[in-house]
Amino acid sequence: MSHDKMYQINLLKTAKGQIDGIIKMLEDGRYCIDISNQIIAVQGLLKKTNLDVLDNHIKHCVKEAIKEGNEDAKIKELTQILDRLIK
Amino acid sequence: MSHDKMYQINLLKTAKGQIDGIIKMLEDGRYCIDISNQIIAVQGLLKKTNLDVLDNHIKHCVKEAIKEGNEDAKIKELTQILDRLIK
Amino acid sequence: MSHDKMYQINLLKTAKGQIDGIIKMLEDGRYCIDISNQIIAVQGLLKKTNLDVLDNHIKHCVKEAIKEGNEDAKIKELTQILDRLIK
Amino acid sequence: MSHDKMYQINLLKTAKGQIDGIIKMLEDGRYCIDISNQIIAVQGLLKKTNLDVLDNHIKHCVKEAIKEGNEDAKIKELTQILDRLIK
Repeated sequence: MSHDKMYQINLLKTAKGQIDGIIKMLEDGRYCIDISNQIIAVQGLLKKTNLDVLDNHIKHCVKEAIKEGNEDAKIKELTQILDRLIK
Repeated sequence: MSHDKMYQINLLKTAKGQIDGIIKMLEDGRYCIDISNQIIAVQGLLKKTNLDVLDNHIKHCVKEAIKEGNEDAKIKELTQILDRLIK
Repeated sequence: MSHDKMYQINLLKTAKGQIDGIIKMLEDGRYCIDISNQIIAVQGLLKKTNLDVLDNHIKHCVKEAIKEGNEDAKIKELTQILDRLIK
Repeated sequence: MSHDKMYQINLLKTAKGQIDGIIKMLEDGRYCIDISNQIIAVQGLLKKTNLDVLDNHIKHCVKEAIKEGNEDAKIKELTQILDRLIK
């Protein structure tokens, strides 16, 4: 498996572990704002993962498509994802 | 445990399950854009959870503080979280 | 006019001025990434304005409604705005 | 001037006009939530503009760099902007 994939998988495993922690906080009746901040932290991990996925996508899939001269679909796909990602 | 807490915990458990699915997609070498879209879906679940946590926070903690006349700290806290949450 | 309102109006006027600058950059054929970064800066000003508007809303409108015991509609409205604001 | 640039400039001019409207709403003491919703609408226009700028950037600048084999800096730049844009 590539270094990037392991990095992405590790980020996701960390996110899972943090979600377990948030579930525990809810069960323990911890303060709402602390819980909300923890959810934001997990969102940060998922964003980081997604950025790495997209960075790799551009460096490999989009790049190959451009080299082969059939990039239109790839670029359209990328812009559609950006539309979903960008607030 | 309150209905809201169970709802929030179920959302988080669903998010965990979906993260397992994304890890599998990475291990199987699935297409980057499909993986990115799945991460966005998990982000949506976490946002939903956080909104419910904050909605409850306003309905209970902030409301009580206002009734007791000592809301300044609570409102400041809420605005700080909004600052972190809002793009 | 209140201090807060003047602050919000000044932020918006600054945002307008920066948009003029971006239009000029486009007319001058400036580099895309520089233009994109400038748009992000204006987004930051609008976020700041909106946070101040909401902070004031909570401190006055929501607070009054809670004091008068008819806060349901106000809190629902606030959560709906947060849903639109939060990515 | 290219069609895309005119499209982006028109979006920005519309955003400016809407900001004028929000300033008027503030001066008229209009309801906070209505003002907040209007700011969100302007944010939408700016996002749309930025997406179009980035879409064009990928189709032209990034594509050329890849064709010429010197894409590393361009891709790094793009990922950095995505990091700023994505919540």
